[in-house]
Amino acid sequence: MKFGGTSMAGSERIRRVANIVRRQQAAGHEVAVVVSAMAGETDRLVNFCREANPLYDPAEYDVVVASGEQVTSGLLALTLQALGCQARSWLGWQLPIHTDDAHAKARIEGIDSEALLASMAAGEVAVIPGFQGLSDANRITTLGRGGSDTSAVAVAAAIGADRCDIYTDVDGVYTTDPRIVAKARKLKYVTYEEMLELASVGSKVLQTRSVSLAMKEGVRVQVLSSFIDDDSAPSDEIPGTLIVSDEELEGLDMERQLITGIAADKNEAKLILTRVPDRPGAVATIFGPLAAANINVDMIIQNVGRDKGETDVTFTVPGADLLRAQTLLEAQKEAIGYNRIITDGKVAKISVVGVGMKSHAGVAATMFRALADRGINIQAISTSEIKVSVLIDEDETELAVRVLHTAYGMDATDQAA
Amino acid sequence: MKFGGTSMAGSERIRRVANIVRRQQAAGHEVAVVVSAMAGETDRLVNFCREANPLYDPAEYDVVVASGEQVTSGLLALTLQALGCQARSWLGWQLPIHTDDAHAKARIEGIDSEALLASMAAGEVAVIPGFQGLSDANRITTLGRGGSDTSAVAVAAAIGADRCDIYTDVDGVYTTDPRIVAKARKLKYVTYEEMLELASVGSKVLQTRSVSLAMKEGVRVQVLSSFIDDDSAPSDEIPGTLIVSDEELEGLDMERQLITGIAADKNEAKLILTRVPDRPGAVATIFGPLAAANINVDMIIQNVGRDKGETDVTFTVPGADLLRAQTLLEAQKEAIGYNRIITDGKVAKISVVGVGMKSHAGVAATMFRALADRGINIQAISTSEIKVSVLIDEDETELAVRVLHTAYGMDATDQAA
Repeated sequence: MKFGGTSMAGSERIRRVANIVRRQQAAGHEVAVVVSAMAGETDRLVNFCREANPLYDPAEYDVVVASGEQVTSGLLALTLQALGCQARSWLGWQLPIHTDDAHAKARIEGIDSEALLASMAAGEVAVIPGFQGLSDANRITTLGRGGSDTSAVAVAAAIGADRCDIYTDVDGVYTTDPRIVAKARKLKYVTYEEMLELASVGSKVLQTRSVSLAMKEGVRVQVLSSFIDDDSAPSDEIPGTLIVSDEELEGLDMERQLITGIAADKNEAKLILTRVPDRPGAVATIFGPLAAANINVDMIIQNVGRDKGETDVTFTVPGADLLRAQTLLEAQKEAIGYNRIITDGKVAKISVVGVGMKSHAGVAATMFRALADRGINIQAISTSEIKVSVLIDEDETELAVRVLHTAYGMDATDQAA
Repeated sequence: MKFGGTSMAGSERIRRVANIVRRQQAAGHEVAVVVSAMAGETDRLVNFCREANPLYDPAEYDVVVASGEQVTSGLLALTLQALGCQARSWLGWQLPIHTDDAHAKARIEGIDSEALLASMAAGEVAVIPGFQGLSDANRITTLGRGGSDTSAVAVAAAIGADRCDIYTDVDGVYTTDPRIVAKARKLKYVTYEEMLELASVGSKVLQTRSVSLAMKEGVRVQVLSSFIDDDSAPSDEIPGTLIVSDEELEGLDMERQLITGIAADKNEAKLILTRVPDRPGAVATIFGPLAAANINVDMIIQNVGRDKGETDVTFTVPGADLLRAQTLLEAQKEAIGYNRIITDGKVAKISVVGVGMKSHAGVAATMFRALADRGINIQAISTSEIKVSVLIDEDETELAVRVLHTAYGMDATDQAA
């Protein structure tokens, strides 16, 4: 079980979490719990580090920020004990959770689970701070912001857990953002690949790294809400959304939909370089400098220009990198040989995702027709194995998502569905 | 060097501390620094523990409260780095600082200093969180409130430090409380024994345990202020008060005073049991139950009663234990056979302390005459090797301290003395 910062924010909420944990143990499960710091605490600690030293040593930064999860793990153990559960905390350096030495963005290399398993078998709830580990140099490391999801999946893999339940402030993964589409349906199942595509395009329920790790290690992950605190005994039925492999899903979900979900990402910006010479190597002179500057380029479209031997190149970068990308490319104007740069920060990427998507043709055709019927202009298109994405005007984001949700027959027939 | 919570409260103050440390290093010293949590932080964490579980497991309590010093040690290392010093934090479990397993009140058993000494010899400032250690069971322990002074002395002993400088919010140890006597003088030297007597009777500059440890390990301790931040190069001259052995003091301070300091303690309460049968074992029936209830009895006076075969017994207990002591003794009324209990919570103990005190007679005579001249009534007297204490009415505390400070010739002749 993993609980995020909102669930751990203060004594009252920790008591609620302890109750959820206690009920799982009472139902006969051996339980390990991974916790985040109280909401706001990591920001407070990061701020202290910045004030101490703007160019902070990540090893000391880790000493400071890892304390937030240390506090909540001790407090959850204490609260569980108050409810009559045996419980103890296991800090990252105590297990230990081995990581590389890339402080502030470390990767987990392995977890010694022997003591943990013995403690759980003896009836103790194991409480483990997320986000932290230990380097070979015996120093505290942290996994980068949001790393507690990854900690939870890694612990679940290390102890061979039947399931990794990640409690959040939403009750599952939806076909699309319910704030945009009232008729969005909660998915009972989703595959790792679909979850990755949905996460990377804006449905930030889980940290992407944790989903990749779950896929690699075959950990069954459930996303569910920590704010549903009913007193019914827990069962093995799934109140949230279960994230599983494609193979398991085939056995579980007979009536699969073509499309699993629709995601929107407003955090995109478009650049067009006009009249780029249409010769070998021209594109490399554009994207080489961007890659060197660690700017991720997402969609790329090359249009045939009006004049022979020239072409317009359109591509997208994260909105936060737009100015940096533009400055870099202006410095390279001579080398690339383009005419001018047109930028647009007000674009959105809409993606339809589904492993059931046998061929893109049908999915794409439905998409283009539905958008065209509402006069929404498509500025760029890209596809992956299980996804078709289009770039549109940011103002039309919500309209596009609603139109597509209906077009693919995903609207819930009633609120309870 | 050790810095308390007030000195570590916030980025600005930590920068001031870092400057003090940097100047010591620049003067050619190898430096280890022990830090407290930010002022108020430990209270905040203790409060979380209480909310989680009023009967908290001290092992988990230690996990939570030790985080405060972890944060400040990382922040001081970061701040020192910002000033161009090499620095790193060494947490209690990293050195480790071995303690017994008495969680929340652990005792230090030893410190592995090898890595610490190597790091310091390589030019790194070692930053060590106070208050925390590691048990044989590989769990975090804490030393009890105020334990950081003890940590500092233990680290100084382990690395064979020339001196342990404890920076506080006062600039040294005074002949008496300067808030009571404006002419109180700062002492240049004081012995461990004197410091213990002064501390245990109310001059709470250092934690008593840390002074005992310094005496046992022969660590020279200096108390000085962290709020004097002059930019003059540090020298080996002593701006604060140096606490040393009796032997060292004889060499240092040729013109020793008879009396080193005067302490007042209002945290006392007096009980009188009247007409206790004057027979063997009677006193045991009074103090046995108090000892069993962990109530410390300090001064004891037995007066001959008016009637033959009976006596009045007067004694003092900590003010906080007065009601408990009274209740216990009332339950034992039959067994003890006294007539009635008279209690007085409004008393104060005034002590004159000094290793130079060759015999008590002269010191006591001066004391009694000076107090009598001002009409201050002495309710009880007790003496130790280096101390004479009297119990008086609490309202006369400040008057008595001023009168005695003058009587022993301790008043400063000018403010600079």
